[in-house]
Formats: sequence, C-alpha cells, structure tokens
Amino acid sequence: MKFFSYLTDAEIQYVHASSLEILEETGLIVRNAKARKRFADHGAIVDNETELVRIPAEVVEKYRKMVPPTITLRGRDSAYDITFPRELPVVATASSAPDIVDPATGITRRSTSADIARIAHLVNTLPGFDLFSISTLADDAPSDQFSLTRFYAALKNCVKPVRTSVYDVREAKQVIRLGELITGSPEAYWERPFINFGYCSIVSPLTMDYDSTETMMYFAENGITAYGTIAPMGGLSTPLSLAGMLTIMNAEWLAVATLAQMSKEGTAQIYNFLPVFADMRDGAYAPGAIEIGMMNSAVCQMARFYNVPAGGYLGLTNSKVSDAQSGFEKGMSPLMGAMSGADFIVMGGLQDALMSFDFGQLMIDNEISMMIKRVREGFGFSKESASLQEIKDTGPAGMFADNPSTLERMHTATFMPELADRNLREKWELEGSSTIQQRALNKALEILSTPNSAALGADADARIRAEFEGIVAGESQLQEGWERIDIGSKLPTRARRINRRGKATQRH
Amino acid sequence: MKFFSYLTDAEIQYVHASSLEILEETGLIVRNAKARKRFADHGAIVDNETELVRIPAEVVEKYRKMVPPTITLRGRDSAYDITFPRELPVVATASSAPDIVDPATGITRRSTSADIARIAHLVNTLPGFDLFSISTLADDAPSDQFSLTRFYAALKNCVKPVRTSVYDVREAKQVIRLGELITGSPEAYWERPFINFGYCSIVSPLTMDYDSTETMMYFAENGITAYGTIAPMGGLSTPLSLAGMLTIMNAEWLAVATLAQMSKEGTAQIYNFLPVFADMRDGAYAPGAIEIGMMNSAVCQMARFYNVPAGGYLGLTNSKVSDAQSGFEKGMSPLMGAMSGADFIVMGGLQDALMSFDFGQLMIDNEISMMIKRVREGFGFSKESASLQEIKDTGPAGMFADNPSTLERMHTATFMPELADRNLREKWELEGSSTIQQRALNKALEILSTPNSAALGADADARIRAEFEGIVAGESQLQEGWERIDIGSKLPTRARRINRRGKATQRH
Repeated sequence: MKFFSYLTDAEIQYVHASSLEILEETGLIVRNAKARKRFADHGAIVDNETELVRIPAEVVEKYRKMVPPTITLRGRDSAYDITFPRELPVVATASSAPDIVDPATGITRRSTSADIARIAHLVNTLPGFDLFSISTLADDAPSDQFSLTRFYAALKNCVKPVRTSVYDVREAKQVIRLGELITGSPEAYWERPFINFGYCSIVSPLTMDYDSTETMMYFAENGITAYGTIAPMGGLSTPLSLAGMLTIMNAEWLAVATLAQMSKEGTAQIYNFLPVFADMRDGAYAPGAIEIGMMNSAVCQMARFYNVPAGGYLGLTNSKVSDAQSGFEKGMSPLMGAMSGADFIVMGGLQDALMSFDFGQLMIDNEISMMIKRVREGFGFSKESASLQEIKDTGPAGMFADNPSTLERMHTATFMPELADRNLREKWELEGSSTIQQRALNKALEILSTPNSAALGADADARIRAEFEGIVAGESQLQEGWERIDIGSKLPTRARRINRRGKATQRH
Repeated sequence: MKFFSYLTDAEIQYVHASSLEILEETGLIVRNAKARKRFADHGAIVDNETELVRIPAEVVEKYRKMVPPTITLRGRDSAYDITFPRELPVVATASSAPDIVDPATGITRRSTSADIARIAHLVNTLPGFDLFSISTLADDAPSDQFSLTRFYAALKNCVKPVRTSVYDVREAKQVIRLGELITGSPEAYWERPFINFGYCSIVSPLTMDYDSTETMMYFAENGITAYGTIAPMGGLSTPLSLAGMLTIMNAEWLAVATLAQMSKEGTAQIYNFLPVFADMRDGAYAPGAIEIGMMNSAVCQMARFYNVPAGGYLGLTNSKVSDAQSGFEKGMSPLMGAMSGADFIVMGGLQDALMSFDFGQLMIDNEISMMIKRVREGFGFSKESASLQEIKDTGPAGMFADNPSTLERMHTATFMPELADRNLREKWELEGSSTIQQRALNKALEILSTPNSAALGADADARIRAEFEGIVAGESQLQEGWERIDIGSKLPTRARRINRRGKATQRH
C-alpha cells in the first residue's frame, strides 16, 4: 500500500533546513546545567548566563543520524515485546489523566491505584492495545511512591509493555528497583529490562526544562528504553499554521535527538508528538480537532525522512462522554495517522482533552484500534482472492454464500466487532435499545469480574511488599457497586432523553 | 497531496482484464428486451431466451472510453451547480430511508413529505452538504405521485442540486414536468435542467432488472443528469473477499457504462458503489464496517484508471442512535475515501443501515463532512506558512498568540466546529452536561424555526399546485411539539443512565 502524504520532498527538505537554521541561529533555552555542558562538550555554543544553547547544523546532522531506525518496547512477558516499525501500527493507551469516570455513579472523581490495576487488567486482555501507557494518575499514592505506585499497579496486572513518565531520577531508580524485585535479582532484570519510560523533553517553544532533561539523559546513559513526546500548542507556543508548527516541533525534536545521542550513541527514539492547536475563539485546547491528524500525517513523512519510527497522540477527544463526538474524534485522527504510515499511535481510553479516563471508552477505543489495524493489514489482493473463476462459476444471479471459498474465508475476510451493534432494529429493541457506551461498560465489568490470569506471582509480590513499606494493594478486583447495567430494563436512551413530560414512551 | 492506495498498477490491470473476461465469457442477465436489443445492435452476443448478454472485450473497451471525465449536477440556483472531480470532495446526504426518528418522541416512525421538506431546508443551510440526495421516502405521497412528492418537497425547500431515484419512466416524466413548472416553461427548464436522478443499475451478481435499466436508458437518451449506484453484498452476491468483490463490481459497472454510452455517447457517469459485506456470523448487512472504506479506496483507484469520477456510499452506520458507534462508523469510512481521492461521498443523515433518518445525525454528519473537506483542503505548506522568520523572532520560551500572523490566520488556520464541545468540564457541566446529539438536535430545530429564505416562489408553487391535484403541502415548518431540549435542566446523561438507585447524583 502507498501512504497518504501532504508534503513534497522539497517541502520536507525545507522543514529540515529551517530547523537546522533555527537551532544554529536562534538556539534553545536549556535549564539543566549538565545538559548545557554536554551540548558544549559536543560542539554547541552555550551561554550559561542566558541558558541559551545554539547548535551548529553539522553537529545536529552528525548526532541525529545516530538515531536507530527501530525501537523495542518490552513487557513482563517477552511474548509481548514489540520492535517497530512493523507492518501494523503499535497502538497504546493514552496516559496520565488525573480523573476517571466512576462506573458506579457515572461521575468523574480522582483516579486511584486500584483504577490503574483494573485498567491494566483490561489492557492485558484487549487485542487492540500493544502497550499500556499508564492511563491515569493515582491519587492514593504515598507521597514518596508516586510513580512507583502507578508502575506497580500496572505491572502487577499486565504482561504487555508498560510505560509512563516519572518526575525525576530518584523515581526512575525506584521503579527500576521494582523491576528487579519482579524478576528476583538485578542481574535477571537487566538481562531483559522490561520497564519503559516516557519524558516530556521539550516545553515549547524551544525550551528544555530541568527534570525532564535530567531523566532523559539518565535513561540514555543507562540504556533504559524511553521515548519523549513533544506537545506544542499551535497559536500559543508555535505559529498558527500547520507548516509553522511542523517547523518548530521538528527543530525541537532534533535538539532532543541530538542530546540523547550525545548522551549515548544509538539511543532509540520515536519521532513522537502531541501537536494540538488552540481554538482561537477562546484559546481552548482542542486535541479532538482534525488538525491533529493532519499534523500526524506530516510527522510520518518527516520520520521517514529521518528513518526513525513515527508516532503521535491521536484519537483524543474534547467530549466528556462517549457520545458521537467522542466517536468521530477518536476514529478519524488515528485513521489519518494509520493511512499516512504512523508506526505508533497513542489513542485509548481518555476523554475531556486528556483529563479523564472512562472504562467504556477504553473498550470502544479497542474496537477502533482493531478497525485501524484492519486498514493497515491491507487489501489482500491476489489472483486467488480476486476470485475470477469463482465469479464465472457462480454466474449471473448466482449465490456466493455456500461457495467453498466463502466458508474458508468467513472468519478472516472482514473484521467482526464485538461491541458495534449490527442487529435488526426489532432485535436491538428487544434487547433493550442499548448504546455502545452501555455495552462497552458492561463488557469491561464482565472482564473485571473474572480473575486476572496475568497477575504477578505471589513470591514476586511478597518481595515488593517487603521492600516498599506502605505500597498500595494494586489489585484489579471489581469495586462494590460496580454492577453491570441492566440494559434490558431500560427504555431507549433517546426516547427517555427527549420526552419532557416525564412519561415513559415505548414504540409500539 | 498524494492519495492513499492499496493496489499496484498491475493489480488494477488484472481487475480490468478479469472484468472484460467475465463480460465476454460469462456475461450478464438483462431483463429488459430493449436493452438486450441495444446490446445486440452494438456488437454483444444476446440470447433472448435465457436473457444472457455477453459483451466482447473490444465492445466494452470502445464504449467505456466514451464516458466523460466529469459530471455536472445542477441545482435550482445555478450558484450551487457542481462539476467534479474538483479539489474538494462533493458530499451528499444518503437517501431513501423509510423511517425517521421523530424529534418529539425520539421514536422511529414512517417518514413523510413534511420531513423531506424540513430536511431540504436544513441541507440548504449546511455547508457540509453539496447535494441533497433525498433522505427519506414519503409515506403520505398520493399513490400516483410517489417520486413527484419527494422531489416537490425537496425542490421547494432547497436550491442546491437535488437527486433521487424514480421507479419508472412515467415517474421520471412527472418529475421533469415539475421542473418545467418551476421554471415556467419547458424551454426555460431545458436550458438548464436542474433535476438529477439516480438508478440502481445492477442487481448483483451480474443482473440488470427491467425498470431501472429502462429509466437509465431514458435518462441517457434524453441527456438527463443521472448516476447509478451498484450495491453488492460481499459473501452473498459477490465473493467473500475485497478483491473478488472489486472484480465483479467493476465488471458490473463496465456493463452499465457500456449500455449508457450505446444509448448516447458522452453520457456522464460516476464510478459509484455501495459495497457492503455481510457479517458472516449471521448474514447481517454491515454498512458501518471499515471494509466499506477499504473498498472505496480501491474504487478510487479504478475510477482514476478509467478517468471517471469516483464515488460511494460511506459514513453509514448500523447504530440506531447517534452514539459513539455512529460517530466512529460515520467518521472513519468517509475519511478513508477522502484520503484515497474520492470525488463524491454520500454520507449524511441516516442510521440503522440506511433504514432511518435522524435530524441530529444530519447536523453531526455536516460537521464530519467539514472535517473531511478540511483534510482535502491540504496542508497549506508555503515558505510564508512555515514561518521561519516568525519562529526566530519569537524565540525560545516566547509567545505566539499576539503575533500579527496569528491574528491574520486565526479565522482560517483550523476548522472550528459548532457542535463539537471544547469547553472546560466546569463550563460544560454548568451548561447542562449535554451530548453532541442533544446540541445537534437543538441546532436543527433552531434552523427550522426560522423561515426558509430558499423556499420556492408563490407563482411557481401555484403553477405546480394547479397541475398536480392532491399534491402534498411541502412546507418545512416545525411541527407542534418539536421543542428544543432544555439541556440546562438535565442531569448528566451518563450519570442518569448509570445510577440505578433513582437518585439524582451531581458532582460536587
């Protein structure tokens, strides 16, 4: 298949050349003194007073070429390790929402470690997700175990690769110690280090902060898998144009890539962004806008130019509920990325512009992910699948249903969703006139009502609990009151919503 | 921009060659004797007993090359005439649902001519839609005015191009007479005939029925704008594979194109399909499936090979309500078409696998259409938009909000939706925690509560009413009881739905 693309080769070259010019002439502010020294030691012009670092083009060119073409993310079970680019895009949950929609009340509240444990259990079972980028914060985390708490609840319940950011190097070391306790020894852990980290490498425009830069260098120096995300806001921290945003964020990525390679040659990275435009009517943060998909399309082209994996946050929504808006905002931008060749798509579970997580939404997003992977599986064209002889044999006004090839292909020819309704209206009404939100939440609760076969073994858990006093439980059991919605007893949502006379109205 | 594509040139050639082979060796059944005679007169091998028509490859090649590269659809107001292919895709409403969701009760019922009048009023005002393909049937139509009723209600309230199918030539003539009465004379009408027709040219597999073929030939002979839609069902009327479906539907289109050109050289056509796979678990008709988008992508490639406009039904949903499923099903497949180069996208207003129309859904689909057009507008890359000097001038840690270029671009840089919510949660809750479905329905009712400035003049209307006794009113006024939803007085939908104790629960 040939991917969709916006930019000509000359335009890609122009973005690259402009980025070099920005880094050489304008430079960037680097708050971290160790990073400034590292830049200076490797050929950049550094002013420690103003914290300004200017990087000559030949220095950027030298180091950015060291970024390897692939990255490997590892899980507790090596069967789920992923090296990409690969044929299908790698799909991850979106991370770090402070809030969650409580399944018992439907009202948002602060999320906790138990929520993370449950989400981990779900992600572990959902084929749409390849990576659990930890979906929420944990409001109940002990103050000295903030990131440890999140990683513990996640790793305890999910054998797929797990990833999130940490505040500083102290936290990173604590989390890596968790990995060593899981495997039983540092040696065993470092044979296949399976914890993956993230960092916010740049505060747009053109600024590296202290802690993120410190952790990024620490990861690089120690060969710890990590990738950064650059999250500009068009019209505020970048020019208000797709091309202008692309130019500055490309310069920013090159600066980080350069510092990472100065820290250790061959450090794997992703050309990864969360490029959101402000809604200029009121400055609102609008990650559900179609422009995020358009930006990702250009991101894919730049990444191919640099021969590095292309990634991005997509499928975000501004909606606070799993309504039609969340449906089209979550479906369209990841598809746009996938059709542009995205290698890595962060898209699952969040609502309200990354502010809250919703269990039903995660299940819906899993189905969207499966559709996107289906698109990337390809058309499957072959002389066999083109079926010329079968068409001739079946003939005009014939019936293909009973043909041998139909029976052979019936489980693989199309994607068959679990949540999307395809019933006749009569059957759908008999079954309670449900929305996909209701079916999705029920499916999540059904999975969570079964034991998690991927749960961490008791020995490993005991080692962890012995070392980290006061650590959270990290269990994924259902909470009391989280019962499945009894769809059958409900009137059609739409009818109930619209009828203003308080009467129940049923179709007859 | 470069469009996404699945097929290689060799695969396109193979589909074409296979289609020729099918038409020459296997042939198709043609129920209409006049059509069989026309085929025979132009070089096909016809068996009137079996009704089988086999068309030699050189005959197909001769006539399919006569299909012009563009088509023009005309509206009552010539300012809305469309000739395409053009830069942006032409977006139409989806047509002919028997049912409608009543805005007063939220319950489906048979649709009427008054519904068509109101939908026409809306389509006339919605920038996402270029063509009103008449969304519903009219249950109140007098028995001898079935298609006349639909066209009258539509044309009376919409100056954009209007199109739908008719049952037979008698109906077509009645509808054209309507056009002559609107303009005041046959001469005035035929100077710029603004009524557009559709036909279902093929009953898959490989069969032309009597009436549709008769109307298709009538349209062609008389230079009346019309286009057909071929609607196979994969696994039943075609092989159960994307490639097999493509092969047979391409053969079917070539047969129709050939007959149309035999009827009149230069008859404009669209390479237009509704290619749906059956869900092989139960044979369900699944137009919401992602495979419809994948098929459309290949349709775009074949259409470019034949140098004719590419079109298709996309953005359909199996959902019965405007939930998240309708959102992602309606967003994804039209985007896939648009990124594959579709010239013509039929997508608006219907739910439940083309069975019912919903006013709110039409408004939501309008917004999806605007997003898709935004994607096709392009990235807008230029040295000016890449903003190199602005980035240098603003510098690290600078602010772009007040830059002159930001102010210049603020109304055009991004698409700004009217219905998609981008508020902070607090504001959204204060305003009633609405879903996009509620806002969309209210917006529809708001438009319908204002007079339709595009309504047909009184003189023309008097001429029509004098000639067609018993014709419906065709007025787009709001019906009694169709009041806007008072969103502010409602609890959050989600909370109400999930809370099973009957208590109102508010976030605090």
